[in-house]
Amino acid sequence: MTSELKNDRFLRALRREETDCTPIWIMRQAGRYLPEYRATRKVAGDFLTLCKTPELACEVTLQPLERFDLDAAILFSDILTIPDAMGLGLSLNEGVGPKFANPVRTVDAIKALPVIDVQEELAYVFDAVRLIRSELDGRVPLIGFTGSPWTLMTYMVEGGSSKDFKFAKGMLHCEPKMSHVLLDRTADAVIAYLKAQVEAGAQALMVFDTWAGALSTPQYMEFSLAYMWKIVNALKEDEKTRDIPVTLFSKGGGLWLEKIAATGCDGVGLDWGVPISYARELIGDRVALQGNLDPTVLYANPETVRREAKLVLDDFGAHPGHIFNLGHGIHPGIDPENVKALVDTVHEHSANIRKQEAGS
Amino acid sequence: MTSELKNDRFLRALRREETDCTPIWIMRQAGRYLPEYRATRKVAGDFLTLCKTPELACEVTLQPLERFDLDAAILFSDILTIPDAMGLGLSLNEGVGPKFANPVRTVDAIKALPVIDVQEELAYVFDAVRLIRSELDGRVPLIGFTGSPWTLMTYMVEGGSSKDFKFAKGMLHCEPKMSHVLLDRTADAVIAYLKAQVEAGAQALMVFDTWAGALSTPQYMEFSLAYMWKIVNALKEDEKTRDIPVTLFSKGGGLWLEKIAATGCDGVGLDWGVPISYARELIGDRVALQGNLDPTVLYANPETVRREAKLVLDDFGAHPGHIFNLGHGIHPGIDPENVKALVDTVHEHSANIRKQEAGS
Repeated sequence: MTSELKNDRFLRALRREETDCTPIWIMRQAGRYLPEYRATRKVAGDFLTLCKTPELACEVTLQPLERFDLDAAILFSDILTIPDAMGLGLSLNEGVGPKFANPVRTVDAIKALPVIDVQEELAYVFDAVRLIRSELDGRVPLIGFTGSPWTLMTYMVEGGSSKDFKFAKGMLHCEPKMSHVLLDRTADAVIAYLKAQVEAGAQALMVFDTWAGALSTPQYMEFSLAYMWKIVNALKEDEKTRDIPVTLFSKGGGLWLEKIAATGCDGVGLDWGVPISYARELIGDRVALQGNLDPTVLYANPETVRREAKLVLDDFGAHPGHIFNLGHGIHPGIDPENVKALVDTVHEHSANIRKQEAGS
Repeated sequence: MTSELKNDRFLRALRREETDCTPIWIMRQAGRYLPEYRATRKVAGDFLTLCKTPELACEVTLQPLERFDLDAAILFSDILTIPDAMGLGLSLNEGVGPKFANPVRTVDAIKALPVIDVQEELAYVFDAVRLIRSELDGRVPLIGFTGSPWTLMTYMVEGGSSKDFKFAKGMLHCEPKMSHVLLDRTADAVIAYLKAQVEAGAQALMVFDTWAGALSTPQYMEFSLAYMWKIVNALKEDEKTRDIPVTLFSKGGGLWLEKIAATGCDGVGLDWGVPISYARELIGDRVALQGNLDPTVLYANPETVRREAKLVLDDFGAHPGHIFNLGHGIHPGIDPENVKALVDTVHEHSANIRKQEAGS
């Protein structure tokens, strides 16, 4: 599959191989900051319909690639497809955030969670993956993704977003065994889900652990990282997924980088709080690093965007194994012109760094 | 002043001297989780009136000390008193969060900010401090506090709370000079404010840098820590405040502990993401450490509270220089019984650790 690729910078960087310049993609690159996305979203009517209609999901996945010289596409979907398939009654409304009609807060509710047949329940996701691969026609690789078990658990237990995770962390504190049952079942579904995404054509995988930073260090190790470890293991033990690079992104996980790298993942995502040079010295000999420009830089002007992007590239230096990205998802109010300035600067400046290095 | 104190555990721990057990106070200990607080709040009518009426501020400051065996009182006030005194038009409404009628987003608006006479504009704060000291009658020491310049700037520029700090971080990115003018003026006001709190009777000081974690590492150094450094310097250079211990708390600052300790502050506050043993090894030879139980543990039951509190104490070990606290403010929905379990466990278990250490 890789050999058909016209642009394999992203996959090469994940393997820490030399590239002509630093590849870039942007978390939530298919999103509300693009007028064409908002138009398709309007056609779909609501966000879930957009996710569940492969033609529309494919359309928005490709939109940012038409505008910007991005080095990877990422499946347009939502991290909550798994709990939705488990029957929790998901609704996604702009401004309100995700809501589950049936949050899971008791032993009985956890036991009642069905073991989902992902191929059947989430067929729309794999249909989208196949369609996107076909439409991409080898331009750039396609990334599949999932939420981490802990991050999914927060939504499943809280019934939506939360500021303090009263119920989800309450379950960790008071009912650790029950929490492990829930996390383990969720991890099993995630493994099946990621394997099916690869089968359908995903060429790299990302695990988003968005709410890692809500946990204390021992909690993170026991309730989040342990299940990401299980996921990485399961993928690396299966010959069909063994060679698909997996990137783990724990937002707020700056103190846990060595533990994350030790899972056997291929890439580690960094939020903007972590100096990328610090991460490179710590774990850059084992994994590729993805990140980590502060997403609010894109609220500024092209000049500032260029300056700040160069700082991240210079801080990483002339080494292989860097995938440029934001430290978190792109905000809806961003001017696409600033995104263009970012993508072009990353390619140009990183190529210059390589030339200077070669000449010195 | 210290000699009149009946309970000087807190101040001794800040100086890293031996204590019979580990002192404890709780961020936002005078707050909505207490029914007696809600009653006084009702009498006041609104939150700002409560802050601005010394008798009522004194009353709520003392309430948690009547219930729990706490080792320090903290002035009841709000971090936004300074921008309020600058004429930004503060309103504080439950559920909505703080709002400024006149946010500061331009050079002209920054230049127009008045240099406030804190003694006059914030007299109600110092009246409250004097009254509380008198009512405390030496039971425990009184902590004064402020928001950090960066944290105050976020509210001043955004006009309230924010998820992504679009305007405040936009100013850092695009208008660094202007940002420095705003931060420097705010720092000057903070210094005058803290000195006046000490003059009125505050026996220790805290700087809350609640939104440190929104910054990248270079931003934190340039726009937040630099001004906390200025504040610590100013306090340590003045013989009237030199001996008053200062604690800096940067939420989300786990990667920056050595830099924070290097400011010359006496204590460093830790959120619950940082293992306290890690912080102790890194900076425990220079500063006292305050923290860092996950505040959501208090949503659980007394048994869980006791277990988790012991884990933090054991993780710190039998060393001087620990002030027990939560990793952030106590949530409004907490059962006061759990707070009692926490306070008593901290005293009992830390006394036991000392006995075991002495016997071994």
